[in-house]
Amino acid sequence: MKKLNVVIWNEFRHERTKEKVKEIYPDGLHATIKSFLDVNEDMEVSLAALDDPDQGLPDERLENIDVLLWWGHMAHKEVSDELVEKIRNRVYLGKMGFIALHSAHRSKPFTSIVGTNGNLSWGRNQKEIMWTLMPSHEIAAGIPDHFLIESEELYSEPFYIPQPDALVFGAWFEDGHIMRAGACFNRGAGKVFYFQPGHETCRSYYNPYVQRIITNAVRWAKPNELGYPVENNCPHILTKTVDEFNN
Amino acid sequence: MKKLNVVIWNEFRHERTKEKVKEIYPDGLHATIKSFLDVNEDMEVSLAALDDPDQGLPDERLENIDVLLWWGHMAHKEVSDELVEKIRNRVYLGKMGFIALHSAHRSKPFTSIVGTNGNLSWGRNQKEIMWTLMPSHEIAAGIPDHFLIESEELYSEPFYIPQPDALVFGAWFEDGHIMRAGACFNRGAGKVFYFQPGHETCRSYYNPYVQRIITNAVRWAKPNELGYPVENNCPHILTKTVDEFNN
Amino acid sequence: MKKLNVVIWNEFRHERTKEKVKEIYPDGLHATIKSFLDVNEDMEVSLAALDDPDQGLPDERLENIDVLLWWGHMAHKEVSDELVEKIRNRVYLGKMGFIALHSAHRSKPFTSIVGTNGNLSWGRNQKEIMWTLMPSHEIAAGIPDHFLIESEELYSEPFYIPQPDALVFGAWFEDGHIMRAGACFNRGAGKVFYFQPGHETCRSYYNPYVQRIITNAVRWAKPNELGYPVENNCPHILTKTVDEFNN
Amino acid sequence: MKKLNVVIWNEFRHERTKEKVKEIYPDGLHATIKSFLDVNEDMEVSLAALDDPDQGLPDERLENIDVLLWWGHMAHKEVSDELVEKIRNRVYLGKMGFIALHSAHRSKPFTSIVGTNGNLSWGRNQKEIMWTLMPSHEIAAGIPDHFLIESEELYSEPFYIPQPDALVFGAWFEDGHIMRAGACFNRGAGKVFYFQPGHETCRSYYNPYVQRIITNAVRWAKPNELGYPVENNCPHILTKTVDEFNN
Repeated sequence: MKKLNVVIWNEFRHERTKEKVKEIYPDGLHATIKSFLDVNEDMEVSLAALDDPDQGLPDERLENIDVLLWWGHMAHKEVSDELVEKIRNRVYLGKMGFIALHSAHRSKPFTSIVGTNGNLSWGRNQKEIMWTLMPSHEIAAGIPDHFLIESEELYSEPFYIPQPDALVFGAWFEDGHIMRAGACFNRGAGKVFYFQPGHETCRSYYNPYVQRIITNAVRWAKPNELGYPVENNCPHILTKTVDEFNN
Repeated sequence: MKKLNVVIWNEFRHERTKEKVKEIYPDGLHATIKSFLDVNEDMEVSLAALDDPDQGLPDERLENIDVLLWWGHMAHKEVSDELVEKIRNRVYLGKMGFIALHSAHRSKPFTSIVGTNGNLSWGRNQKEIMWTLMPSHEIAAGIPDHFLIESEELYSEPFYIPQPDALVFGAWFEDGHIMRAGACFNRGAGKVFYFQPGHETCRSYYNPYVQRIITNAVRWAKPNELGYPVENNCPHILTKTVDEFNN
Repeated sequence: MKKLNVVIWNEFRHERTKEKVKEIYPDGLHATIKSFLDVNEDMEVSLAALDDPDQGLPDERLENIDVLLWWGHMAHKEVSDELVEKIRNRVYLGKMGFIALHSAHRSKPFTSIVGTNGNLSWGRNQKEIMWTLMPSHEIAAGIPDHFLIESEELYSEPFYIPQPDALVFGAWFEDGHIMRAGACFNRGAGKVFYFQPGHETCRSYYNPYVQRIITNAVRWAKPNELGYPVENNCPHILTKTVDEFNN
Repeated sequence: MKKLNVVIWNEFRHERTKEKVKEIYPDGLHATIKSFLDVNEDMEVSLAALDDPDQGLPDERLENIDVLLWWGHMAHKEVSDELVEKIRNRVYLGKMGFIALHSAHRSKPFTSIVGTNGNLSWGRNQKEIMWTLMPSHEIAAGIPDHFLIESEELYSEPFYIPQPDALVFGAWFEDGHIMRAGACFNRGAGKVFYFQPGHETCRSYYNPYVQRIITNAVRWAKPNELGYPVENNCPHILTKTVDEFNN
């Protein structure tokens, strides 16, 4: 079986500059995500970072990715528009799934792929309880009806995303707020998942349910077996009669 | 302008038997709802109750209703299957909107119209904060991004409703739970809205935002101007060529 | 690997009484469906029919089914309400997926699970062209952008189903009609798929794309790995403080 | 009553250069749309064109528009990115509805607001039959279950739009194709409608049902009464206890 080519892209600045973040994620939060995805025999996982050459995603690499996970925060604007365009096309053409993590709600790839400004409100770290809204969904496999995250950054509604095709998780926060926390979007011939936990000063990527959800999401978002060539154009249809249709 | 014929159906048992409920809603909670709807010149509002003759909805009355609001709780099973069938048909045929209030989540009309068992979890009265998820929706008109309900019965996810066509409101509860609290469903040629606040020992129907939401929902759920006769059958189409189509 | 327990339920009357149908599906159309599903090593497929004892689905059998396919037509009313209730519960509790084939659009299980009267219009057998609307969906895996069905019974919009959670296929018919032909619904903790081709006097179940779609649908509809016990009740939540939440 | 400020933006090139188009729409197709919208007392309708100063939409004009209709075709790329950004923000902030007509499926504002490449296939002018899929929707008010358009440019699935929040119309084309032809999207705090008929060499904007649909869509897409200030930012929430929430 061909393994899924999974790349975790991380802005990777906080972990190198802030002591507190370095303590939690010494090799970067993408490395922590890699370590729990690595146990899956169907995945080949590697890392990419903003400050790598070509922002971590030279063409020959990007063209082989099946699922791209994206964590960005303070440097959204530094990501090249050209790269964003390539990512968006790859998702729309059904060649790659895209998973936006936490503060990627406002990243260029996520907002331009799904159609949103990504706006929400945010506040201090606090208790979060994650609720499963759609137990029938593949991404909820094995997840209890709710689980506690000891400390996460408050992210709050109104969250100006499009209505998801599947709203799988919702979050409760200690200070009185809620959030659509796990949301699926089909776009073009590809798939997108947004998942809210993952602030750099919190330990959410060590939570086993968060890990299971991200693992499930990678499998869900993988490219479908397309039965025809999906291309980036608007082809002209030559006139034919219905009798000329055939299989 | 022809007024909307709005009927508020109430099980109307708690208010006659429990002192605490009687204090809050002396004439029944349906009477309180009527009093805030009555200010609208486009609505003609009246009341119906389970213990009325024909369970409050004889045919000649039902056949004139534009929007039916439904509050039931302990006596769901007493509602006649024949009446439920008439209500469902009327909604499916686009002749009447249906608004399910609070404990009507498990009423026969709501569950059979939208397709659910209506299951959820529930608990003690507590603080609730209602969040607007879809500010573009007609039912959210004039509603702030959030508002407090001082005391409501806890209703919690997982709430086994179908994914709504529009998820307009979500609720936060003090004890750590969330709830999809305001949800729209198009069914057949008609419309359905579920709205969670309204426990009989709480004062939610006096809350001005709750009142505005219910008012908005009545207008949203009203029957559409149908451009063709919607009937309860599967008509046979006589063979015709495309050239015979005309307007 | 435990195999999926797949049962194909067929009304199985036409094939025994009408010469034309018997010629096309000599052992019943469910037998033809079984024969193309049988090649899949992950499925254990068996047949059930209306005139079998217990209408083919005694409790001990029903309780082991992972995915139930349903074909009914003239005898919808003969199906026992008690059996329908058991099927619906099993789907809502996430124990079984349900696939409604062709004229099952108006069957008791389909209409009561998803919430519809199932009405549509119908007419003579004719050319149909099936179009893929959602190439990212698992059920569209391997299916071209369109394919021809040489002859199918005309089924036409307006089709009074709820808006699907995923509208995967749409159909064109020679006489000027269209139909939402392949539609997914999440209900409770379970999954439902409706697929339009399959009239008893047509040969659609021999079409390789129809076969692939039904095969894909069985895998998609299989029960999810539930992370908590989904039960048919509304449990009371004992008061606890947020600090008492744990995993 | 304050009238809706409705602006019809047209590329307005074909009508000035091609004889055939000039014959059908001598003053531009936007003028024809204006003439049927003008009969509505609740609308103040005006025209804008690509070759007007500031591409027809200087800031002081744009900032007063309630609903913007957009027709573009060959010159999508000439539309300024800065203007597109202003339009998108205005929709996301709930200040303006947006209606994309026909070939605007691939326009910069439509594709970037909803999240799509807008790809589809197209072919020769031919008979189209429009089917109503969602008779409960405001935009379907007064529209029959189907109507004929004598000649329209073939637009065909796969159409790579996101799943609509409401799929109101579907189209049948003579040559064997179908199209999701009338689709609603909620984005941010605003609303978007796509409607397929309207090729420059066809007479669809003279069709009374097309006119009614566009009229309905203008009213549906108008800005909602927002109950709070929607702004283009991610505000920080000051820590407060739940007791500090109030209305």
